[in-house]
Amino acid sequence: MLISTQNASTTNTAAPEQRRGIVIDGLQYSAWSEDIFRQMHAGGVTAVHVTIAYHENTRETLTRFGEWNQRFEQWPHLIRPVYEPRDILRAKAEGRVGIIFGAQNCSPVEDEIRLIEVMRRLGLMIMQLTYNNQSLMACGCYEENDAGLTRFGKQAVREMNRVGMVIDMSHSAERSTLEAIAHSEQPVIISHANPSSFHPALRNKSNKVLDAIAANEGLLGFSLYPFHLPGGPACTLDTFCDMVAWTADRMGIDRIGLGSDLCQQQPQQVLEWMRNGKWSKTMDYGEGNAGNAGWPDALSWFHDNRDFPGIASALRAKGFNDTETDKIMGGNWLDLLTRVAGTEKNQPTTSATCAA
Amino acid sequence: MLISTQNASTTNTAAPEQRRGIVIDGLQYSAWSEDIFRQMHAGGVTAVHVTIAYHENTRETLTRFGEWNQRFEQWPHLIRPVYEPRDILRAKAEGRVGIIFGAQNCSPVEDEIRLIEVMRRLGLMIMQLTYNNQSLMACGCYEENDAGLTRFGKQAVREMNRVGMVIDMSHSAERSTLEAIAHSEQPVIISHANPSSFHPALRNKSNKVLDAIAANEGLLGFSLYPFHLPGGPACTLDTFCDMVAWTADRMGIDRIGLGSDLCQQQPQQVLEWMRNGKWSKTMDYGEGNAGNAGWPDALSWFHDNRDFPGIASALRAKGFNDTETDKIMGGNWLDLLTRVAGTEKNQPTTSATCAA
Repeated sequence: MLISTQNASTTNTAAPEQRRGIVIDGLQYSAWSEDIFRQMHAGGVTAVHVTIAYHENTRETLTRFGEWNQRFEQWPHLIRPVYEPRDILRAKAEGRVGIIFGAQNCSPVEDEIRLIEVMRRLGLMIMQLTYNNQSLMACGCYEENDAGLTRFGKQAVREMNRVGMVIDMSHSAERSTLEAIAHSEQPVIISHANPSSFHPALRNKSNKVLDAIAANEGLLGFSLYPFHLPGGPACTLDTFCDMVAWTADRMGIDRIGLGSDLCQQQPQQVLEWMRNGKWSKTMDYGEGNAGNAGWPDALSWFHDNRDFPGIASALRAKGFNDTETDKIMGGNWLDLLTRVAGTEKNQPTTSATCAA
Repeated sequence: MLISTQNASTTNTAAPEQRRGIVIDGLQYSAWSEDIFRQMHAGGVTAVHVTIAYHENTRETLTRFGEWNQRFEQWPHLIRPVYEPRDILRAKAEGRVGIIFGAQNCSPVEDEIRLIEVMRRLGLMIMQLTYNNQSLMACGCYEENDAGLTRFGKQAVREMNRVGMVIDMSHSAERSTLEAIAHSEQPVIISHANPSSFHPALRNKSNKVLDAIAANEGLLGFSLYPFHLPGGPACTLDTFCDMVAWTADRMGIDRIGLGSDLCQQQPQQVLEWMRNGKWSKTMDYGEGNAGNAGWPDALSWFHDNRDFPGIASALRAKGFNDTETDKIMGGNWLDLLTRVAGTEKNQPTTSATCAA
C-alpha cells in the first residue's frame, strides 16, 4: 500500500477541539422517520453514515438520492446532507444531524468507471466493493472462492482514490480485502464488523485484515448487529467494551470507531431483500439460518440512537480517557473522512468558494 | 408571473466590473476536442452552455456527465465545470473556459419530480421543458396542437424554481412557453432563437413571447444557426446586428445575449439523431427538408468560437457602447444565471464554506 504524505500529515484533519463531542455512527439503514431523526438528536449524534444502496443499479440509486432530498426538504431543522467532510462540522454547528451517503455494494456504478466520479458528486462518500457475493470489482465474504480484485476492481480502487470516495470492505472476502488495501493509495475501511477472534462470523475480520487496515491508517467500525457479537443478543456492554479495548491495543486508538448496523423498524421483506436482492430464487439467510430467519433480537443496551451516551460512559468506565472516548465515538470517523474524502480531491467548486 | 423580491434586487448579481469582458455563449453542441477548447480561448470565451442531452434518459445522461468529467480530467488547464454561477467568475480568474451544463429536453428527469434536484446537484443548470415534440411537461414547437403545460410540467416548473434550475423554452410551442412564464416564480429564458419578425422559422419567437420573457426579466439568446436567420447562410453580420438592435429596443438591453447553437464537426448522423431521436421511423427534417437535409452552410462571419470578437466589434459599430456590448456578449447571461441558479437555492454545502 502507498500512503501519500498528504494522508500522513495532520494539516488535513480536524483540530482536536473540533473532534470533541463528535458522535458518528458508521452504518445505519432504518425505515427513516421523524421519530428516528429525533432519537439521533436525543442521543447526541452528530452524523450517520446511511446506506442508500444494497443492490440498486445506477438509475435506482438516483431515486434513493431523491428520497433523501425529500427528507431534507421535510425536516430541514433535523437533518442535512454531508457532501464533504466539513459538512459534519457544519451540521454540529447548526444543531442538525449530518447524513453521510454510502453504498454497501458497487451496483450504483454498474460497469462504468466514470460513474464513480458522478456518484461522488451526488454525495456518495463511501462505497463497498462487494456485498456478500462476487461483484464486478471483488469477492464477497459468503463466496467459497475469492480470486481477489478484478481488472475493473483495480481501476475502480484508484478512481475512488482520485475522487475521494472511501473504499469500504465490510462485506468482502479476505483476499479481496487485502488486495484492495494493497492496491489503494488511500486508507481503506471496514465500516461495520468485529474482530473474528471475538466472534467467528463470516462477516467479521481476521487479525491479518485488522493489522492491514491499521497499517494503512484506515478504520474499523464496531458492529452492534447481534449476529456479529459473541453471544448474539445476549452480548453484554462490558464484553463489547472488552472487544473495543483489545482492538484499540492491536490497531491503535486512532483506528477504531462505531458502525452499529442499526436497521430500525424495517420489515422482514427488507431483510430478505438485503440478503437475496434479485440474484437468488431460493432463500439465502445471511448470518441467520432457516430456523432463525428473522431480525435478531436487539441488544439490551442498544435499541436505537438514544443509547450512544451509554456506550461512551461504558468506554470511560473501561478505562478510556475523554480524548480516547471522543475518538472512538466519532473523532476517528471525522478524521478518516477528512483525510480520504476531503474537498480538494473532488469538489473544485467548493474549494475555491472563499477566494471568489 | 411572480417575480420574487429576491430576483428584483441587485444584491444577488455580479458587480458591473465583474461583468466586464465576460463572453458567454448560451448554446453549443460540438464534437468536443482540444482544438475546439483552444478556439474558445482564442475567441476570449469565458463560458459556454453545452448541451448534454437531447433525448437521453436519466441513465444515459449520467454517462454524458461522465464523458465531461473525462474532458475535465484530460484538459484541466483549458476547461472547468460550472456547478454554480460564481464558477463562471472563477473560470475567468483561472484562465479556463467554464462549462455550463444544460439539457435540451426534460428526458433526463424521466417522470420523476425528485430527479430535478438530483440533476441540479450533478450540475444541470438549464433545462428545456420540450425539444420540438410534446414532452411529459409541455408542447414542442413542431407539434400541431399545443395544450400548454401538463400537470407534471406545472410541478416541474416550481421544482426547477426551488432548486435553481433555469427553465429554457427555446424548442417549445407558444402557449406552453407563455404558460411556463406565467407559472414560474423565476425568470424564464429562450437560450437560442431569434425574433419571428426577422425570420419566420418555427423555432423563432413571436413578439408576444419576447415581451413576456422581457417582463419576466428573463433572457433571449440570439441564434447563429443559419436556419434561424433571414437569408440563411447568406445573412450578413450587419443584418444580425440590426436584429440585435431592434430586439434591444423591444426587450431592453438587459434581456438579450448570445446562444449560437454552434454544432461544430458533428456528422450528419448526429443531426438526424437530434431530429429523430428514438421516436420516429421516418426521417424528420427539422428546419430543413428532404431536399436540404444536411447541416446548413456556416455564416461567413461565424465559423467557430474565434469569431466572437468580430461580433462584439460589429455591435459597437452598430452603436452599442462598451457597457451595452459587454452585457450582450455575456454580462446578461452571468446576471441571469446568478439570479436564477444562485448557490443559496440549491447548494447548502457551498453557501456555508466560508463560515466553517
